[in-house]
Amino acid sequence: MTDPAPTEPSLTGPATPKPAAAGAATPKPAAAGAATAKPAEPEQDAVELIRAKRDGQSLTDAQIRWLFDRYLAGAVPDEQMSALLMAVYFQGLDPAELRTWTAAMVESGERLDLSGLGRPTVDKHSTGGVGDKVSLILAPLVASCGASVPQLSGRGLGHTGGTLDKLESISGWRSSLRNEEMRAVLQTAGCVICAAGPGLAPADRRLYALRDVTGTVESIPLIASSIMSKKIAEGTAALVLDVKVGSGAFMREEPQARRLAQAMVTLGTEHGVATSALLTRMDTPLGRAVGNAVEVAEAVATLRGDGPPDLVEVTLALAREMLRLAGIDADPAAALADGRALDTYRAMIRAQGGDPDVPLPEARHRRQVLPAPQAGWLRRLDARAVGVAAWRLGAGRAVKEDPVSPTAGVLCLAKPGERVERGQPLLELLTDEESRFDRAAAALAGGVTVGEQPPRIPPLVIEHL
Amino acid sequence: MTDPAPTEPSLTGPATPKPAAAGAATPKPAAAGAATAKPAEPEQDAVELIRAKRDGQSLTDAQIRWLFDRYLAGAVPDEQMSALLMAVYFQGLDPAELRTWTAAMVESGERLDLSGLGRPTVDKHSTGGVGDKVSLILAPLVASCGASVPQLSGRGLGHTGGTLDKLESISGWRSSLRNEEMRAVLQTAGCVICAAGPGLAPADRRLYALRDVTGTVESIPLIASSIMSKKIAEGTAALVLDVKVGSGAFMREEPQARRLAQAMVTLGTEHGVATSALLTRMDTPLGRAVGNAVEVAEAVATLRGDGPPDLVEVTLALAREMLRLAGIDADPAAALADGRALDTYRAMIRAQGGDPDVPLPEARHRRQVLPAPQAGWLRRLDARAVGVAAWRLGAGRAVKEDPVSPTAGVLCLAKPGERVERGQPLLELLTDEESRFDRAAAALAGGVTVGEQPPRIPPLVIEHL
Repeated sequence: MTDPAPTEPSLTGPATPKPAAAGAATPKPAAAGAATAKPAEPEQDAVELIRAKRDGQSLTDAQIRWLFDRYLAGAVPDEQMSALLMAVYFQGLDPAELRTWTAAMVESGERLDLSGLGRPTVDKHSTGGVGDKVSLILAPLVASCGASVPQLSGRGLGHTGGTLDKLESISGWRSSLRNEEMRAVLQTAGCVICAAGPGLAPADRRLYALRDVTGTVESIPLIASSIMSKKIAEGTAALVLDVKVGSGAFMREEPQARRLAQAMVTLGTEHGVATSALLTRMDTPLGRAVGNAVEVAEAVATLRGDGPPDLVEVTLALAREMLRLAGIDADPAAALADGRALDTYRAMIRAQGGDPDVPLPEARHRRQVLPAPQAGWLRRLDARAVGVAAWRLGAGRAVKEDPVSPTAGVLCLAKPGERVERGQPLLELLTDEESRFDRAAAALAGGVTVGEQPPRIPPLVIEHL
Repeated sequence: MTDPAPTEPSLTGPATPKPAAAGAATPKPAAAGAATAKPAEPEQDAVELIRAKRDGQSLTDAQIRWLFDRYLAGAVPDEQMSALLMAVYFQGLDPAELRTWTAAMVESGERLDLSGLGRPTVDKHSTGGVGDKVSLILAPLVASCGASVPQLSGRGLGHTGGTLDKLESISGWRSSLRNEEMRAVLQTAGCVICAAGPGLAPADRRLYALRDVTGTVESIPLIASSIMSKKIAEGTAALVLDVKVGSGAFMREEPQARRLAQAMVTLGTEHGVATSALLTRMDTPLGRAVGNAVEVAEAVATLRGDGPPDLVEVTLALAREMLRLAGIDADPAAALADGRALDTYRAMIRAQGGDPDVPLPEARHRRQVLPAPQAGWLRRLDARAVGVAAWRLGAGRAVKEDPVSPTAGVLCLAKPGERVERGQPLLELLTDEESRFDRAAAALAGGVTVGEQPPRIPPLVIEHL
């Protein structure tokens, strides 16, 4: 008669391991890499944790550590973890839970030791935007001022680009380095931009893959712990976060961006990493180039002292903050002007197998689009629309395994605040596959506004946390 | 830099099947019973459904049917379904979603055809309570008035008992019948009480097992669809729901019980089953016996016309409602008084292999506990406390696979509203294992109130839906 029957954790008496319910659960191999596929029985104690979080309770340190331990051992199966992640999506994690959750992810792998390089270490992380090639400039710039910059970077997904994808348009450049190689590049060039190795926060790797397929990516505590576990594990002494806000960013509204920034600053500080954050605007692409090779070209131009003003503004703000945290009294604008930053960039590229003198690849097809409907000022150029167009041209990927085109992208022929003539094309699309133009152009519909008055352009740095 | 990267379903362009994220997801066998364990890749489209439900949107008929189809085929893995179930826990299902969800579960298996029995079919379902032996009396009682009662029942879990567990204390009685056997018993005796076969709503069986280990049992739409999918599939033409409310019930508050009842009545009606519901109180055990054999004994006493008033009250209210739905004009009180119902009960037990004349087993140890602290009236005897005590004595199980003791249980020596003398024991505990007494007695702490005034005893039937 009793169907469904309640299980009352507070009443079950002594906790007994619980087999999967009668005749129903599919036996599964225990864990990734387990040689013998022994059926894993979902853990009964995990149900109590899921229910507690679902009901808005806080999990204890011991519960969170038990959970990660059992999950990594394959005893808590993915279906229990994904239910818990969805409960976290709705109920959040309080500061103490978030600290322990992140610590458990850090401790799931190695923590690099970057002391002994003879220079203070400082890294930057951006939550991602359109045309965001800041890392390519910033790492050599800050290194040329005397810091050591271990920049572990990611790949693009969706409408935002990834630093590694961009640099891979340089002939010979390698993103995957062993720990010793990474250290050697840091010693030689003062900076390194590479992929996080498999030994860093492997729990995050498994959890992120699970979140990706279970609709639980968009959770501030889960995002904060994912980013910070890798940054803490990489061994940097200091970290500046560039938390982007706006149409082209992951966080579209300031309050949520601020909450994410605050959570990450707290986590870094608690783990002994001197951490601060800038909230920066991402309503329009940064610079004029969006793609891979075209962004490398724009970064190099910036390193030559010929960068677009918005890109220079954000890069220098982040550089100053990184140098402040590293305790270095230097003027990054000077290092950009006198060519030191460019030299450091070239040394870094060479140290990672790349040849900075080989010309960057160019797209086979170019098409100018979006004629200005009237003369006036460009008031708005939507970052997300441009990002999606670049993505559809081949610059980005839909899923992690897709290749990206080095040559595809979008050039902004005008930027907000600039004067435009009637009929003047506002964007240029680049691709190797002509058939991609139409769907890319469709993404731009409604993405621009031309008006009779010049727009007010607010400062890019919204807030300093 | 983009980590974690957003996936925006509205921007991903043409949906492409998505493999599990790089190097992370554990390959799993495709589906229960699949002979070759081919790794199943989580479905990308499932992520869109999960995100939609998570964000409070309604799923379309096509989406729900696609989901069940792919889940049963093993293409949507358990970790995606459990994330969706947790999202449903938080966001609910609207009436159209619930109708389709339930229909998909019904259509996952066979739907029995009980027409041609020559009598109207009507069943009852209770959401479970303490001392709830109503089915044992009601099925033969209503059958003896001219209806055909196909009563598919479940087992107890937690502090509530199960009808099948109770009847199994009768020597030789069998709960598992093939469809033809079930039909034959119905023909012979007019009623049958048996387990739902594996062919009825197999999707519910899988989903319930998953909910059980992922903290997603306590959701009104999921409970409603689970109960109703089996009742619709069993082929009854009419159904009366006994939705219990109170400390010993699954639903402790009236508003949620009413919502569950309303959802089930709507579902039954939409699927062509004439359905109504009674909301009944479950604050104190029904009758005086709680357990297995002791409840059978009390049911038989009631069939002899010697039942406790509360049990008789609820049973007759449900019987009248069942007969009304079946279109039968008969007085169930008369059938109870003149022995017809008892005859039908004995015929049903015999038809299922049981011998109603073999004495029921008795517990080896009995202990009277809980002396009344003062003379006066028993004002409160908490159903949950008594249910947990019976459970700890061995009458119930912690997990579905546990055996239950036929002899363990609790006898209520006084019921609320009765006069008690100071020092008079209020309960008697029964078990075959003496070591169980102490933990069982501990469950009763705070479970009774004796006062100087008699309590007001409200009617057991709260509402008729």
